[in-house]
Amino acid sequence: MQIEKPYLMFIGDVADQLAAKTAAGIVDWRRDWCVGQLRLPGCKADLGIDDVGIAEAGRRGAKTMVIGVVNAGGVLPEHWIRSIVEALDAGLDVASGLHTRLEDVPQIAEAASRNGRQLFNVRIPSINFATGKGTKRTGLRLITVGTDCSVGKKYTALALEREMREQGLDADFRATGQTGIFISGRGVAVDAVVADFISGAAEWISPAADPSHWDVVEGQGSLFHPSFAGVTLGLLHGSQPDAFVVCHEPTRKTMRGVPAALPTIRQVIDATIASGRLTNPRIQCVGIAVNTQALDEAAARACLEEIAAAEGLPTTDPVRFGVAEIVKRVKALF
Amino acid sequence: MQIEKPYLMFIGDVADQLAAKTAAGIVDWRRDWCVGQLRLPGCKADLGIDDVGIAEAGRRGAKTMVIGVVNAGGVLPEHWIRSIVEALDAGLDVASGLHTRLEDVPQIAEAASRNGRQLFNVRIPSINFATGKGTKRTGLRLITVGTDCSVGKKYTALALEREMREQGLDADFRATGQTGIFISGRGVAVDAVVADFISGAAEWISPAADPSHWDVVEGQGSLFHPSFAGVTLGLLHGSQPDAFVVCHEPTRKTMRGVPAALPTIRQVIDATIASGRLTNPRIQCVGIAVNTQALDEAAARACLEEIAAAEGLPTTDPVRFGVAEIVKRVKALF
Repeated sequence: MQIEKPYLMFIGDVADQLAAKTAAGIVDWRRDWCVGQLRLPGCKADLGIDDVGIAEAGRRGAKTMVIGVVNAGGVLPEHWIRSIVEALDAGLDVASGLHTRLEDVPQIAEAASRNGRQLFNVRIPSINFATGKGTKRTGLRLITVGTDCSVGKKYTALALEREMREQGLDADFRATGQTGIFISGRGVAVDAVVADFISGAAEWISPAADPSHWDVVEGQGSLFHPSFAGVTLGLLHGSQPDAFVVCHEPTRKTMRGVPAALPTIRQVIDATIASGRLTNPRIQCVGIAVNTQALDEAAARACLEEIAAAEGLPTTDPVRFGVAEIVKRVKALF
Repeated sequence: MQIEKPYLMFIGDVADQLAAKTAAGIVDWRRDWCVGQLRLPGCKADLGIDDVGIAEAGRRGAKTMVIGVVNAGGVLPEHWIRSIVEALDAGLDVASGLHTRLEDVPQIAEAASRNGRQLFNVRIPSINFATGKGTKRTGLRLITVGTDCSVGKKYTALALEREMREQGLDADFRATGQTGIFISGRGVAVDAVVADFISGAAEWISPAADPSHWDVVEGQGSLFHPSFAGVTLGLLHGSQPDAFVVCHEPTRKTMRGVPAALPTIRQVIDATIASGRLTNPRIQCVGIAVNTQALDEAAARACLEEIAAAEGLPTTDPVRFGVAEIVKRVKALF
């Protein structure tokens, strides 16, 4: 899979900023690759880059239109098809992170064929995985877990990769979702793997490595989310992490998309250790990453201090304050 | 999906009896539907029914050859293709519980087309599920869980359905694997569902029902199996059971297929309650089903008594002694 850069970011008419988190993540980590955003009337998200039409995107050199949104079920809304066909007619490839296969929409398949363009479905794995084995592999692994979905697990993993490298560790981000794959150019969307192979896919993503090498695995979902906990658990077992970081959003009142209560950070630490020790008895929590975007700086600092005091672990907002303290902890422990 | 009966049971040259558990389950619960078994040289399993060739199966009225085996990954061995083509040429349909889609093998697709026969892949869901919602549904639900894979979860669920009906309860078995689908004629192979939709599929399998109606959901895997725990957890969350029965095989030394230790029955009870209360806070264990096939009757009785005393719950071997005591407990509690 080789998706050509730069990208035109298509976010349609999504209902909120969270629904455009794929696109926002790509812009945050690979801004140079994004020539602009294409939004439809009524769009409630904004990537903070130029609004461009397809023609202007072409003039700016765009090679691929990225459908950078998530929605429950990952279905492609019918009224987006027209924009996708226009992009193909303008000579762009199209890459999607939705569950719907682009080529399963006849107008899109025809337009791609007519223009000799490529369609990419990063969320649909093209590999046949084995079932997980649970056997301990060489190398060190860290995974990000969450009190909920959409709380910063990918951001935290990417920030940890960057900081670990800066502090002299040999580390690689391992993408498990569409955004991570767009950012790193490899990985597997584990939520799209056939359920029998979740832990096997996680083992494939993070193969045996040098004893001092760190894989920083992007977590998915939450052990406490009634829709997705199975994915979270399979990924945890297959990753067999030595270390994990809990990600949290302090203003969230209910689990994303469902009327369920949020677990506490302590519940997530305990459940992750209880489940994770099945494939790695040494698993331990090395820090807490709090998404304080909704708080002002004073409130954010107070929130981090309170959590750090309660849990006795390095606690930070990776976007605001970096993850240096967590990586120092990792270096001290391993 | 309408699979025509009676069946010719194909078990190939599988390496042990457990690998033929799909076929054995169908024979145990629907013996009248099975005209005989077809085994290849070297087969280590025996269904205890007549060995017949394809021609003889046809004379006995077989309408469908059932590929009744499980193997890690669910792949179709190449040397079985010839038997499948022969069955199609003899006018039989073919139904498979493997992950491999029969029509993806060109010789099989051609033979089916040439003879106007149907191919069924009961393990490959044909429905687009929604993601799980976690919202409490009306009706009562019981799920079977296990200390391991292949310990009798399906048998126990089928025995509970039969006994509940005999004791006057309104109960339906809900199939979540290929054997159960062959036996009950409906259901979803949840291990073949895309990971994002495991709990959503479980919600679909067991919809809202009359407040006094019992769905008896066939469990899958084990929360303690490093290959499949994600499936188990998603199914548990989607089923939101009021009650569960722990299934156990007392002579098993390691988890099936992997070098991992077995959990205790108590660990399974605790982990199931801890995880299950996310979608049903009232979840409780109502009994223990022990597969004592490997023990003589005295040893079996001693084993059951020991477990019953330790856990304080009705404990039985469903095959040997039935599940009347567990159903009495259910009636007393709900």
